[in-house]
Amino acid sequence: MSRHPIQIKLSEGKKEKPDPTTLVFGRNFTDHMFVADFDEGRGWHSHRIVPYAPVTLDPASIVLHYGQTVFEGMKAYKSDDGSVRLFRPEENMKRMNMSLDRLCMPRINEEQALHALTQLIQIEKDWIPTTWGTSLYIRPFVIANEAFLGVAPAKKYQFYIILSPVGSYYKEGIHPIRILVENEFVRAVKGGTGGAKTAGNYASGLKAQQVADQKGYSQVMWLDGVERKYVEEVGSMNIFFKINGEVITPAINGSILEGITRKSILQLLRHWNIPVFERKISIDEIKEAYENGVLEEVFGTGTAAVISPVGELNWDGYKMIVNDNMTGPLAKQLFDTLSNIQNGKEMDPFGWVLQLNNEIAKLA
Amino acid sequence: MSRHPIQIKLSEGKKEKPDPTTLVFGRNFTDHMFVADFDEGRGWHSHRIVPYAPVTLDPASIVLHYGQTVFEGMKAYKSDDGSVRLFRPEENMKRMNMSLDRLCMPRINEEQALHALTQLIQIEKDWIPTTWGTSLYIRPFVIANEAFLGVAPAKKYQFYIILSPVGSYYKEGIHPIRILVENEFVRAVKGGTGGAKTAGNYASGLKAQQVADQKGYSQVMWLDGVERKYVEEVGSMNIFFKINGEVITPAINGSILEGITRKSILQLLRHWNIPVFERKISIDEIKEAYENGVLEEVFGTGTAAVISPVGELNWDGYKMIVNDNMTGPLAKQLFDTLSNIQNGKEMDPFGWVLQLNNEIAKLA
Repeated sequence: MSRHPIQIKLSEGKKEKPDPTTLVFGRNFTDHMFVADFDEGRGWHSHRIVPYAPVTLDPASIVLHYGQTVFEGMKAYKSDDGSVRLFRPEENMKRMNMSLDRLCMPRINEEQALHALTQLIQIEKDWIPTTWGTSLYIRPFVIANEAFLGVAPAKKYQFYIILSPVGSYYKEGIHPIRILVENEFVRAVKGGTGGAKTAGNYASGLKAQQVADQKGYSQVMWLDGVERKYVEEVGSMNIFFKINGEVITPAINGSILEGITRKSILQLLRHWNIPVFERKISIDEIKEAYENGVLEEVFGTGTAAVISPVGELNWDGYKMIVNDNMTGPLAKQLFDTLSNIQNGKEMDPFGWVLQLNNEIAKLA
Repeated sequence: MSRHPIQIKLSEGKKEKPDPTTLVFGRNFTDHMFVADFDEGRGWHSHRIVPYAPVTLDPASIVLHYGQTVFEGMKAYKSDDGSVRLFRPEENMKRMNMSLDRLCMPRINEEQALHALTQLIQIEKDWIPTTWGTSLYIRPFVIANEAFLGVAPAKKYQFYIILSPVGSYYKEGIHPIRILVENEFVRAVKGGTGGAKTAGNYASGLKAQQVADQKGYSQVMWLDGVERKYVEEVGSMNIFFKINGEVITPAINGSILEGITRKSILQLLRHWNIPVFERKISIDEIKEAYENGVLEEVFGTGTAAVISPVGELNWDGYKMIVNDNMTGPLAKQLFDTLSNIQNGKEMDPFGWVLQLNNEIAKLA
């Protein structure tokens, strides 16, 4: 498949870059963005890198009414030698196509999208912060921009990639977070869109999150929508439990998002010969493990936070304090290893890292 | 509560109005729209009627990524004497606030919103088509327009009202539609957002709809996400069954949208002393009624189509032909009565209709 040419229009001015020591998540955006258009019958066209600017949408655009949109999240890192690294970006593009399928939206060309991303990052490479814990967050997304109030897949779409220099997702950093087990609200159910990275899954989680906030908890732990007993995710992360020397994470079941960090952690654990299982795990089993003193560690995993240790689980008022509310050794080892591989401080035995300098050299 | 003033800026040109005899649903929009802004700490402000124009959104706007948006749908009719009528608009504004609550979005002032709508329709009254079956579709919606990639309720929103002259929602008109009972996909589940009028519910239904289309069916019938046996909705309508002289519609349970047409039909049926029940109804019960020859009528209800008779239900290849695939007498009577009340051709014994001429006179 031949590659679409990318038109490049550079911005006239440049924004001031934020102080890397006080960076927050998702508030600052770089000078440029990538955009492509889709029209039924013509396919994807007009691939371009342009100055970061507002999206203009007809008020009747399908995305605003019926939520036809999917997104991805990944990070670029600059290592000490100045080289730029992406972590498994091909996995994100692959998942984006799965999400697009679920939402009846047109697939992107993954290789073309990676090429566009590489070009965009090359232009914006001065925006990649280098302070430890910071990175350039990458947000590809596709929206339905046809003006039509009927409930039907759109015939027009736009694909964007925007970039945001970020600090840690959680203000607390790698410190353990407090989690409320959610009994009332449900994030997603089998047969729904929970396995896709699409807007509605996040909108539906806000209310539970708000209630948890008010009670002093950072995130909720989602239980399945059918039996209301099996653990699904925590906030917008996947979740791992270390019980009596074994690591367990809920199996992919159609309502859980298949995280790329989750996948990488499974691979790392297997590489280290630590017993790890993808299976159903009920909140009762977790309580029982806690009561037996074998609930050793709990942690969330995701692109934004990488690893987020859980210090407390509150299930209907029953509080389980995990590892004395301290970051466990396994969570720390995983965080360090993954962060070091991502930052180029440690060898990458899995071929996960895409070094952009090589990539850019190849394109030149 | 004092009313916010509405600034009015009229458009310089006027669009050509579409031919009322070939009107489709949701493709044409009038010359003006209503907009108001919300900022945390300041509340709703800058209420204005302005020329219909694109929405400009930062690419990182929360609505595009996390689906924080709700909408409503209602219709304005022009009767033979030129008076303009709205059907229970206060119910839509009330439901909009319920949806806003569920999505952690700020409530609107219902009275203020109705006032804005009245003003907008007064300006656009020449856009209301008068051919039988046509009307002016009204789409109020609120979107989160804060630029932030964190999953949290936004601090900035916009409230829009746009208007669209429409013909019948279904090209087939009042003719019976063919329905596929959905076994794989789920629209919503208790604890989710199914009871709110929000984007994610519609996005999640597209895939099933696409599969049904390919098989030659107009809509799907949704079963509950837990037991996969109780009927919830059909497409984006509520559903009614007439079995052995009794009318049954699924009870509101947290995952079904509480339709205003549904509510009105329940009231009409009770007024006519027709036995009607809001309760759980399983697909097995429907099949049994069909086999016993007592499945007399099936019809969907909603603002767009008013009444949509169902001529065929296909459950896993088992086909139930309802009322010889013809519009049943009850569906017809309900459609005629409701349409006549809405259009001012029949007396409104329930106080459902808001006559805008009186309303506008009061405001002057």
